[in-house]
Amino acid sequence: MTTKAYGAHAGDKPLEPMDIERRPPAARDVQIEIAYCGVCHSDLHTVRSEWGGTLYPCVPGHEIVGHVTAVGADVASFKVGDTVGVGCLVGSCQRCRSCDEGLEQYCENGFVATYNSRTVDAPGHTLGGYSQRIVVDEKFVLKIRHPKEQLAAVAPLLCAGITTYSPLKHWNVGPGKKVGIVGIGGLGHLGLQYARIAGAFTVAIDVDDAKLDLAKELGADYLINAARQDVVEEMQRLGGADAIVSTAATPKPLADAFAALRPAGRLVLVGLPEDNVFPLPIFETVLRGIQVIGSLVGTREDLAEVFQLHAGGRTRVVLERRELEQVNECFADVLAGIVPARLVFDLR
Amino acid sequence: MTTKAYGAHAGDKPLEPMDIERRPPAARDVQIEIAYCGVCHSDLHTVRSEWGGTLYPCVPGHEIVGHVTAVGADVASFKVGDTVGVGCLVGSCQRCRSCDEGLEQYCENGFVATYNSRTVDAPGHTLGGYSQRIVVDEKFVLKIRHPKEQLAAVAPLLCAGITTYSPLKHWNVGPGKKVGIVGIGGLGHLGLQYARIAGAFTVAIDVDDAKLDLAKELGADYLINAARQDVVEEMQRLGGADAIVSTAATPKPLADAFAALRPAGRLVLVGLPEDNVFPLPIFETVLRGIQVIGSLVGTREDLAEVFQLHAGGRTRVVLERRELEQVNECFADVLAGIVPARLVFDLR
Amino acid sequence: MTTKAYGAHAGDKPLEPMDIERRPPAARDVQIEIAYCGVCHSDLHTVRSEWGGTLYPCVPGHEIVGHVTAVGADVASFKVGDTVGVGCLVGSCQRCRSCDEGLEQYCENGFVATYNSRTVDAPGHTLGGYSQRIVVDEKFVLKIRHPKEQLAAVAPLLCAGITTYSPLKHWNVGPGKKVGIVGIGGLGHLGLQYARIAGAFTVAIDVDDAKLDLAKELGADYLINAARQDVVEEMQRLGGADAIVSTAATPKPLADAFAALRPAGRLVLVGLPEDNVFPLPIFETVLRGIQVIGSLVGTREDLAEVFQLHAGGRTRVVLERRELEQVNECFADVLAGIVPARLVFDLR
Amino acid sequence: MTTKAYGAHAGDKPLEPMDIERRPPAARDVQIEIAYCGVCHSDLHTVRSEWGGTLYPCVPGHEIVGHVTAVGADVASFKVGDTVGVGCLVGSCQRCRSCDEGLEQYCENGFVATYNSRTVDAPGHTLGGYSQRIVVDEKFVLKIRHPKEQLAAVAPLLCAGITTYSPLKHWNVGPGKKVGIVGIGGLGHLGLQYARIAGAFTVAIDVDDAKLDLAKELGADYLINAARQDVVEEMQRLGGADAIVSTAATPKPLADAFAALRPAGRLVLVGLPEDNVFPLPIFETVLRGIQVIGSLVGTREDLAEVFQLHAGGRTRVVLERRELEQVNECFADVLAGIVPARLVFDLR
Repeated sequence: MTTKAYGAHAGDKPLEPMDIERRPPAARDVQIEIAYCGVCHSDLHTVRSEWGGTLYPCVPGHEIVGHVTAVGADVASFKVGDTVGVGCLVGSCQRCRSCDEGLEQYCENGFVATYNSRTVDAPGHTLGGYSQRIVVDEKFVLKIRHPKEQLAAVAPLLCAGITTYSPLKHWNVGPGKKVGIVGIGGLGHLGLQYARIAGAFTVAIDVDDAKLDLAKELGADYLINAARQDVVEEMQRLGGADAIVSTAATPKPLADAFAALRPAGRLVLVGLPEDNVFPLPIFETVLRGIQVIGSLVGTREDLAEVFQLHAGGRTRVVLERRELEQVNECFADVLAGIVPARLVFDLR
Repeated sequence: MTTKAYGAHAGDKPLEPMDIERRPPAARDVQIEIAYCGVCHSDLHTVRSEWGGTLYPCVPGHEIVGHVTAVGADVASFKVGDTVGVGCLVGSCQRCRSCDEGLEQYCENGFVATYNSRTVDAPGHTLGGYSQRIVVDEKFVLKIRHPKEQLAAVAPLLCAGITTYSPLKHWNVGPGKKVGIVGIGGLGHLGLQYARIAGAFTVAIDVDDAKLDLAKELGADYLINAARQDVVEEMQRLGGADAIVSTAATPKPLADAFAALRPAGRLVLVGLPEDNVFPLPIFETVLRGIQVIGSLVGTREDLAEVFQLHAGGRTRVVLERRELEQVNECFADVLAGIVPARLVFDLR
Repeated sequence: MTTKAYGAHAGDKPLEPMDIERRPPAARDVQIEIAYCGVCHSDLHTVRSEWGGTLYPCVPGHEIVGHVTAVGADVASFKVGDTVGVGCLVGSCQRCRSCDEGLEQYCENGFVATYNSRTVDAPGHTLGGYSQRIVVDEKFVLKIRHPKEQLAAVAPLLCAGITTYSPLKHWNVGPGKKVGIVGIGGLGHLGLQYARIAGAFTVAIDVDDAKLDLAKELGADYLINAARQDVVEEMQRLGGADAIVSTAATPKPLADAFAALRPAGRLVLVGLPEDNVFPLPIFETVLRGIQVIGSLVGTREDLAEVFQLHAGGRTRVVLERRELEQVNECFADVLAGIVPARLVFDLR
Repeated sequence: MTTKAYGAHAGDKPLEPMDIERRPPAARDVQIEIAYCGVCHSDLHTVRSEWGGTLYPCVPGHEIVGHVTAVGADVASFKVGDTVGVGCLVGSCQRCRSCDEGLEQYCENGFVATYNSRTVDAPGHTLGGYSQRIVVDEKFVLKIRHPKEQLAAVAPLLCAGITTYSPLKHWNVGPGKKVGIVGIGGLGHLGLQYARIAGAFTVAIDVDDAKLDLAKELGADYLINAARQDVVEEMQRLGGADAIVSTAATPKPLADAFAALRPAGRLVLVGLPEDNVFPLPIFETVLRGIQVIGSLVGTREDLAEVFQLHAGGRTRVVLERRELEQVNECFADVLAGIVPARLVFDLR
């Protein structure tokens, strides 16, 4: 089935309108009419092939909210008309130990990303949500029960939300702990809220006062402007951080975050850098009992909780709606750092 | 009080006999006649000032077993004649959050090491267990209830034992997990046993067949000779490691251990290198949910369990007794890698 | 030293003013001038000997806030003028495994309660905080850093606060969980806030609309009036509770709470009943994977977090100040259930 | 398809040979030729309707090992000839939170038991493994990779194994802990081994010396004959139990186990009694921080670990093979307590 989309034909080309083919729904597939799709920084990295290996044409988008328009013969959990979401994963082997443990994002045979996946031949699998329609195995489709007016806000929960919620939950960030969030953008503005929801005292760290203002509005207990202040000194004055979630992945913020931890503190990495290496000081890691932890997306259960917290009015997703036709302008704005926390395409 | 000891006057000098002064026991101090003291690789690093900053004269030794010969007026828990142990720490602030949580090794104001401590002026505090007598705050003295014939073996438990036991316990190495131990020396030969005691399948990794033979004898399920075999390939053939405890801290073994983990696996660092940096691959850390964890010694509770396991016949400490007069020869043997797992000085 | 106090000479007698003797501070003792003392329901139970075994004269009170007026020669952590607190415990053996693990409330040799302790001969140990002065081992004295205007509110944190905070923390009540609190009194009105602070959706359960109104004001997500509504049905309509903390310990509320849990749910008991037995349905416990958990007070670390949360403005202690002379009237009001969450005596 | 089986027509009737109908494999079904089926005490309870509500004819059996003889069109994970197992569950809703969390045994809509299920109309679903063939949804079929000579031993792992392994794993029974196992039968003889595998010191408790002899052979550190010794006194002499897993569910052993715990100890219930109530002493539960925990079967991940431990030679299943024709004699022997730990029918 032919579907309208926006994609790029090469890393140095702008995105342009294109017609792509979606497979007809197989027995366990769900066909979705896309209503909203968030813009994740990964979309830019991939389109521009900054991590290497991008497949072209490349249609990005993995924060997808829409409505079911058709289901395969064996689909048990969805029916036409359901509101649903699709995040970063659309497949995994379902046989390895990671999949058995519900950690499909760490599938030992490689998960199938929502776009740019080499693991599946069908071209339709490698094209994401900057389009009008998508077809996904029901196992990777999520039911959304939020009221209509929340649907645009649900889109960023599917990647930015779960990516920051999951490590905060699994790495024991609870009442009375001090938690730093580095980068108050799409991910960080949610991470900040999740840390606070879990009872922590939160420290927002960014180089941009406007983002720190937003952090304050969202309940941050302390603000550090890394452009003007010494992050390590400021944080250690507060007693050091029990945990820092860094959405930045460049050397200086990581080195600062590492040194800003209190003993036995945790540095959680969720951002994927172009530059691949963090020089970990072994001596300090051992002497101070530091933990450096990578975390990718999260589990279904995590996402269910992210959804509940939003439905229960505990989180606020800061976003600006745009039209998909504006995609190249949107990318430019993201790169210039002049967008609110998240852009979401309105595809209705 | 004058005490006979062996120490070095400079990093490039051999150890030689010397008389040192111990403080008279203060109100909460315990004076101990030393019976055994283990030789830890840290002793060599410090004497040779390989980590920098060694205070001279330097009397090493922090795996100390002995008998109480005097107690201060306010000592409540010990009496003359008790068998006791002293490990790596002899003081901490007891007021910071780490101390409150029983993690004195991560004291925010700096723990007092058994030797080479700058945190205390009294010269006696900077001199360790290669001596006949030591005076320690009762808070850092441990009661030993093992039978007499086990006392030499208890010494290595105080550092090598707890250092490997603690992270295996705290980082959830249980039944059915696959655990690699890199380096089957003083620390590793105990770590291997603790991993097995906790129910894991164990993989011993070393470059020396004699050490791998020992590992096999101690119950290792799999052996990898890193000099001849590809550690990553061998481990991944076994399904990847849930956790690897590395007593080595040089680049190649760490890089191998990192790559030998299964998704969401843990690399635990317990060794202190001369070379300070491990180039952590951020991309892989995030994509595979890897955790790199530093761990220093352990808690009192951990040590109590280490003692119980030994008393209950569950661990075997491989050691060779030596005389303190042989100390320079011993150090040469350790550097040549030709000693059994642990040397212990018999000071009786 | 003679100290003015209020106490009872028998279980059926009112409290009356009396002079009691406090020991002179021993080497590690702290002498405290009491400023505030909260009224805990345990005070009533003990005075009236409803649990049996009360020692008379009985001076109750274990939510004590005051100022240090003298310290023993070996006291390291306090000086005259410090603001401090004393909770339910004033001693423990410090040698058993529970004490080693920081769980002094479960001391295997019996903790020393702030009043009514049989474990210590000195009569002064058996008399609590309804008095002007108390002498306590520094180990059981807590530093208070709250501003002056918060001091009355800190008193209830020392028992009501920690008693509800501790199990919520240790039993994993986090974001997105559904947590019921049975009884919105001194303990419950704090427990409700702690559950919410930890990210849970909270269900307040009481038989009194005024208390449910208070719960709503404090942020309860759902209210159930157990006098008018079917607790089990209402809770199961919400999906069942992940955890219920019951401050009530009578048969009907416990049976309801048990049946209102979702599978693998936790019923936490913190109240001490006159009637001693809860008929646990074994079949349902096994088939539904239920956990019934007793919890007494909490750890020092828990209390530090309770203090931080209050200092950080996250909790609100609902209390009414009274004069100690009104103690019998206060007890009558407590029994009639017509007091706000907590009464606190102003002893300044 | 007609299948030979043994079942009962009423609770007071012996089992007799009967022909039962199995459904033809649906799209996701696996048809299994049964090789071995263990005898669980639940089989007797159900056949005799001791828990009430048994459906007749009743064909028991939920420790099933066999070979795949046919698969439905959509079965992805199995092929004809595979060796497989089926345990206590053959279905669950797969939509509730318990199922999402991998806790299908606590399915909020009721799991489908391998026999005697009311939740499914098809008569074939209510008939268990004392038969030659069974048809099961692939989701509830487990791949078995054990060598042929271990297959009879794998059967008891499917219920007795996982039922005792799961709580020991989830309730933190690790190195140095003291763990009691009440009842050294089918469940207990495995529980004892799992506790030891996890590093605990084990205390076997039974009324039968032969069973205690077996416990000793299997590595129990301590033995208590509850017929001759005072369980509470003996256990407290050892320091009290950190955890006790009770396969008995009658009042006296449970009361003893409760009182034999150390502070903050755990009593895990896995047995289903005829008599439904355990009178829980609330006062002691709170004052000693006791946890009473129900546990049913376990997760897929738990079972994978149970299988690995057996394949790795860490467990020994004590069993006696019988012919299905002997079933009534077998039941009589089980009731008389004169069988080794487990009986397994050889159905090949």
